Amino acid sequence: MSKTTVLTGITTTGTPHLGNYVGAIRPAIEASRDRTLTPYFFLADFHALIKCHEPDRVAESRREIAATWLALGLDTENAVFYRQSDVPEIPELTWLLTCVTAKGLMNRAHAYKASVQDNLDAGDRDPDAGITMGLYSYPILMAADILLFNANKVPVGRDQIQHIEMARDIGQRFNHIFGGDFFTLPEAVVDDRVAVLNGLDGRKMSKSYNNTIPLFEPEKKFRKLVNKIKTNSLEPGEPKETEGCTLFQIYSAFASAEESEQMRQRYAEGIGWGEMKKELFEYLNAQLSQPREEYQRLMADPGYVEGVLQEGAERARSYATPFLEKLKAAAGLGRFV
Amino acid sequence: MSKTTVLTGITTTGTPHLGNYVGAIRPAIEASRDRTLTPYFFLADFHALIKCHEPDRVAESRREIAATWLALGLDTENAVFYRQSDVPEIPELTWLLTCVTAKGLMNRAHAYKASVQDNLDAGDRDPDAGITMGLYSYPILMAADILLFNANKVPVGRDQIQHIEMARDIGQRFNHIFGGDFFTLPEAVVDDRVAVLNGLDGRKMSKSYNNTIPLFEPEKKFRKLVNKIKTNSLEPGEPKETEGCTLFQIYSAFASAEESEQMRQRYAEGIGWGEMKKELFEYLNAQLSQPREEYQRLMADPGYVEGVLQEGAERARSYATPFLEKLKAAAGLGRFV
Repeated sequence: MSKTTVLTGITTTGTPHLGNYVGAIRPAIEASRDRTLTPYFFLADFHALIKCHEPDRVAESRREIAATWLALGLDTENAVFYRQSDVPEIPELTWLLTCVTAKGLMNRAHAYKASVQDNLDAGDRDPDAGITMGLYSYPILMAADILLFNANKVPVGRDQIQHIEMARDIGQRFNHIFGGDFFTLPEAVVDDRVAVLNGLDGRKMSKSYNNTIPLFEPEKKFRKLVNKIKTNSLEPGEPKETEGCTLFQIYSAFASAEESEQMRQRYAEGIGWGEMKKELFEYLNAQLSQPREEYQRLMADPGYVEGVLQEGAERARSYATPFLEKLKAAAGLGRFV
Repeated sequence: MSKTTVLTGITTTGTPHLGNYVGAIRPAIEASRDRTLTPYFFLADFHALIKCHEPDRVAESRREIAATWLALGLDTENAVFYRQSDVPEIPELTWLLTCVTAKGLMNRAHAYKASVQDNLDAGDRDPDAGITMGLYSYPILMAADILLFNANKVPVGRDQIQHIEMARDIGQRFNHIFGGDFFTLPEAVVDDRVAVLNGLDGRKMSKSYNNTIPLFEPEKKFRKLVNKIKTNSLEPGEPKETEGCTLFQIYSAFASAEESEQMRQRYAEGIGWGEMKKELFEYLNAQLSQPREEYQRLMADPGYVEGVLQEGAERARSYATPFLEKLKAAAGLGRFV
């Protein structure tokens, strides 16, 4: 029985924060141990270049994300963990797919259409003002990411479903033109129960709001950030709502159902915000201090992390290289003998 | 003193014909021996995929073109002769450049605009109907072809000047964003004296008119084709014009000035078309029979040609691989150590 291939890319423009951990990293680390799956996780640094032209930011983010995932116990025996830019077969396949992709398909991509609308709204004469070819054509790169490994399932948010449909379209088109069942058509897996955390200011925790709590901030700084989380002005002793409270939301994303229930009780009994912040810090710190140490060790040993990623790239390429050879031959670009 | 790098791509969709030989191949073979140059010649098979989704056609054309150039004495000691699809750094660089290329630049490409105009003229509602992303974005691939080897000069026809300007734009943009003089900005070299031959029907010899005389057609077939060249209905003995005569035009593209002058004399004296065709066939055949034999030998030995191309790809990559590493590092995609 062949395993199910599940593929996930992580864009390398930011520093992993609590929201990333709860929403994406924790479930992915669990999935990495599932022996019924072949999980592919990759640092999507070719995608990072679309949005970010700050080389230091991209370089740092790649190191931070790799160290984070490894520190949290990513099972690299089972999962294939690699950097996108270490697999030249991805841009090679991107070009093959570019040649079979209708321009009209890209015209319909949400991200592109939104940027055009922004230009029109701003009264710009050129609807394409400020839009790069990277933004315009990245659904083809994403199709290559997925199709190169014949991924069966791609976990995505709702906003990404269209890209998986495009990957299916493009894969089907290639299959049709070159007469073969080369590509497995991927399925989007949307989990609407994905935990979303709020940030320091109570809005969704996100790099773009500048309201994040980095996952592996040094302990002192971490405590400071927890203390900065916005609360209402209720005094200690006054009963408090858990609903809409960022402190409680973060706590319960890490705690067991039982612990959360106990905390709800303490809210009703009027726990003070200062006390709650102390509790939250200590609770998170107890869970994070060990992986944080490992993270710091890994950040100080880039050679080791590089080695792990190189091994991952080798495993990815052991699949990708012969497969791309086959695809090239099908398109008339094979070797002469 | 560093040599001048000159780069030429040959799209692999057709069989080399007399027109190709006189206009492009012969001068290129001469240039391949020029020790003041580092000439790069490549089979542009990634470009072929844009226009041609017939794998057998592309595969055959690649073999024919490689065998033709080698049979004619391409100096592969001096020139770097490779297949584009054997250099993964080309599509890798294509993606890096894609991220710094404005979509507006591609909107202005002549080939794309002409296709849109065709759609509008045909009353198509969608201006992008039938246009692939390959057609739309190939100026970026072409920029990568050129910039990856820091080519100084690119010999092109007038219709290609815009692409070289785009390569300069894109290279400059990368240099600017990532703060370095990474790329040499290429210059287009336009030679308006390029010989153009007419085909069987008197129009310009071109695959698209289906009026070509393949360069290395077997002798019998070659004679037949020469006999098919269209003439006027003047009888033997009647004085004839050389101007506008395809037979004379082809003859003089191969003959010395003196021989051409003698032939002009015979036209004035009323040479018959039958006789002239016999003369032309014999004249060409004397020049082509030896390389034709070599061509046939090479076509029968694909392993040898493959080996030559692999060596060329190795030489190309000995430049491209470290250069791409440097470019990736500049963009934040370097190794961790």
